Amino acid sequence: MTEFDLIKKPWERLLELVEAGDSTQLLDFLNSINPMDTALAISRLRMEEQGRLFSMLNPVDAAEVIEDISDTQAADLIEELSPEQAAAILGELDSDHVADLLGELDDEDAQAIIDEMDPEEAEEARQFLEYPADTAGGLMISEYLDYLADQKIHDVHVDLQANRQEYVDYHVQYLYVTDQEGRLCGVLRMHDLLFLNHASLLQQVMISTPLKVTVDATLEDLRNFFEEHDLFGVPVVDADNRLVGVVLPEAVEEARRKRSVHQFLGFSGIVGGEEFRSMPLLQRSGRRLSWLSLNIVLNIIAASVIALYQDTLSAVIALAVFLPMVSDMSGCSGNQAVAVSMRELSLGLVRPNELARVLAKEAGIGLLNGLVLGLMLGAAAWFWKGNPFLGLVVGGALALNTFVAVSFGGLIPLALKRMKLDPALVSSPLLTTVTDMCGFFFVLSFASLMLERL
Amino acid sequence: MTEFDLIKKPWERLLELVEAGDSTQLLDFLNSINPMDTALAISRLRMEEQGRLFSMLNPVDAAEVIEDISDTQAADLIEELSPEQAAAILGELDSDHVADLLGELDDEDAQAIIDEMDPEEAEEARQFLEYPADTAGGLMISEYLDYLADQKIHDVHVDLQANRQEYVDYHVQYLYVTDQEGRLCGVLRMHDLLFLNHASLLQQVMISTPLKVTVDATLEDLRNFFEEHDLFGVPVVDADNRLVGVVLPEAVEEARRKRSVHQFLGFSGIVGGEEFRSMPLLQRSGRRLSWLSLNIVLNIIAASVIALYQDTLSAVIALAVFLPMVSDMSGCSGNQAVAVSMRELSLGLVRPNELARVLAKEAGIGLLNGLVLGLMLGAAAWFWKGNPFLGLVVGGALALNTFVAVSFGGLIPLALKRMKLDPALVSSPLLTTVTDMCGFFFVLSFASLMLERL
Repeated sequence: MTEFDLIKKPWERLLELVEAGDSTQLLDFLNSINPMDTALAISRLRMEEQGRLFSMLNPVDAAEVIEDISDTQAADLIEELSPEQAAAILGELDSDHVADLLGELDDEDAQAIIDEMDPEEAEEARQFLEYPADTAGGLMISEYLDYLADQKIHDVHVDLQANRQEYVDYHVQYLYVTDQEGRLCGVLRMHDLLFLNHASLLQQVMISTPLKVTVDATLEDLRNFFEEHDLFGVPVVDADNRLVGVVLPEAVEEARRKRSVHQFLGFSGIVGGEEFRSMPLLQRSGRRLSWLSLNIVLNIIAASVIALYQDTLSAVIALAVFLPMVSDMSGCSGNQAVAVSMRELSLGLVRPNELARVLAKEAGIGLLNGLVLGLMLGAAAWFWKGNPFLGLVVGGALALNTFVAVSFGGLIPLALKRMKLDPALVSSPLLTTVTDMCGFFFVLSFASLMLERL
Repeated sequence: MTEFDLIKKPWERLLELVEAGDSTQLLDFLNSINPMDTALAISRLRMEEQGRLFSMLNPVDAAEVIEDISDTQAADLIEELSPEQAAAILGELDSDHVADLLGELDDEDAQAIIDEMDPEEAEEARQFLEYPADTAGGLMISEYLDYLADQKIHDVHVDLQANRQEYVDYHVQYLYVTDQEGRLCGVLRMHDLLFLNHASLLQQVMISTPLKVTVDATLEDLRNFFEEHDLFGVPVVDADNRLVGVVLPEAVEEARRKRSVHQFLGFSGIVGGEEFRSMPLLQRSGRRLSWLSLNIVLNIIAASVIALYQDTLSAVIALAVFLPMVSDMSGCSGNQAVAVSMRELSLGLVRPNELARVLAKEAGIGLLNGLVLGLMLGAAAWFWKGNPFLGLVVGGALALNTFVAVSFGGLIPLALKRMKLDPALVSSPLLTTVTDMCGFFFVLSFASLMLERL
């Protein structure tokens, strides 16, 4: 690498190396930069360049790169490869990571790749894909240590030493003990091996009432479990108590973080919960439009309220200045309530059926903030036109609409959750439609009532 | 507990027990419900009831309850207690948890509590408080195992067995080796103890080039570290290479999750990044108002554009219907770009100085989505009034304003980040102001230009 290369940005160098087609230099370069720079540099390549990059690496090295980048980025990339290439790379990854990636692909693409995997891995992948992502089944790993109840501590020591190379990457801090049918019957901490007699049988020294979860345990159940038990992992069993995997607390934290990221992006109208600027323009544009198109229809419905009051509006044209303000401000107040409800829902501090409680808690704020904001805007209107009645109309409408927006905003996420809809994606358009319609209606109908004084 | 009690909601039972004042029954009840229910039940009590609850528990039990609830909830609660009570409870928590909680309090309250803590703990708490929250110093724990380089493996075994009770809760999977001055000189995996000769000195068998981070390592540095190294923890050293703590990967994931939650809430106008409905009404109302008041001022500025065009508006009153639609829709499009930029910033996929790159990536989408949305709204306007020129004005304004909103929305988070402002809290009001002003201006100025045809 010349000095000139060093001052280049990593992605410029990466692009050069991909274009030059020299695998050895490419690999040296990737090994020399840190994972965040790898992710950054790859995100700067066009999809076909990314495909080219991966066909230059052998599966082991490609898998290492995959581990550095986000699942969405990786899934996009895998779609560019042939199923054979993809299967070879996935063969080098952890079982739960494989499932995560396959889960991001279309069913058809995923199936084509699974067909190319070796039969045992394919079977495992198929099994993992059956579990919903945010359950113990979807979050567990299959890399753990299990022994039979009638094995000796000595056998374990021998196995550990013999397979040290393989086990060294295992994240699991426990030995699980099963019977001949694979049913979980005990657990031992790795450390306990330091203190135990080599001649003992596992069943004599194991903790024989192991804590466990079932494959269908939800993210909330798992979070609860790890809040209650400060452990390095929990064994996952199927309906017949057979040990099928282990969930690590990091996996639970990561799933919770991802959920909150998806919530944030969904709330801002990013359908599907993820978008990178390395995605093709048409794909990004189309996904954003799908949400915006719904919005424009809702907006037309809301604005039609204004059309009903064109006479009032022609009589007092100043009202047109306040219409967007009242609807915007109420939207903001309502969104605050939406956000608090979504947060409390995901923390389990409120249940979807507690509409009355949330209403009681939000109505007070809606009233108070409505009064304050109504006074501010009413005063501004009065001051501007020198007409106290204009202030009354505008301020009164904002006060009332804030009350509606905050109360309704607090309730929407709960109601959507009960209807099994995603509050992140739907709350905001729904709220805006209601607050716009009500806001326009309050301003214009109040104005109609005291038209001769305006 | 009678059968009747069993069908009560946990918080009703909790309130009863607090009112009855029977500590033993209270403790039994708290031990019988899971952490999420504890958090839920406590959030339903008024602040003074929460204070009463905690004064009924001894510090050890109170600390266990504190571990079940969120830091914000816990901090609110601690403010209700006397500094002596609070200090006694904090004495039972992990060092990093103490620092997190003290960090949530006012400086004055935190100082009062530290003054009541035992001198050694107080010193440690003071030290932890000095480190910014999202750095290695703020995330590390002080519960780890360290030995001197000239100790024998045998000494370690003896110490482990002697202090098993204390160490059992330690989350750290490594032994750190220091010299007499406390400088980090090596590391050993706990498991290695299983394979090593008891007579060896630590310095003979340790890994003598341990991976480490400095106290000022950022959350991004730490995330990078754990992406690159699949370890259970990383030792933290000060400027003199003295070992001061250990950061666990869970702590990094948790900090990232919290940041994304704060981002979501801040983005929705929840100042301070957290609100629970158990907080007093006036506090919740005031915090929401602080953000809304800024918004109302910005809204007035934006709407003043409409006031400049009252003549145009009186001439074509139908325009009043489209003003809120154009500004709303552009705001939505812009927010999508804001969210993607915030996400890419926090993943390190874009740097704050890459304005040109983001502009290039967003302008295309702005153009494309602007055209589609403009055509939709323009057609609706034409269809409604039977006037193609109204469609041209409205559609053209939305197309152009979408382009502005998307381009500007993509840039705002980067620009705010460069100015060391919080993109989550400021992006949306700033975006809305600009898209409102431009939207009103485009609609009304285009209309003025072809006034005789409308």
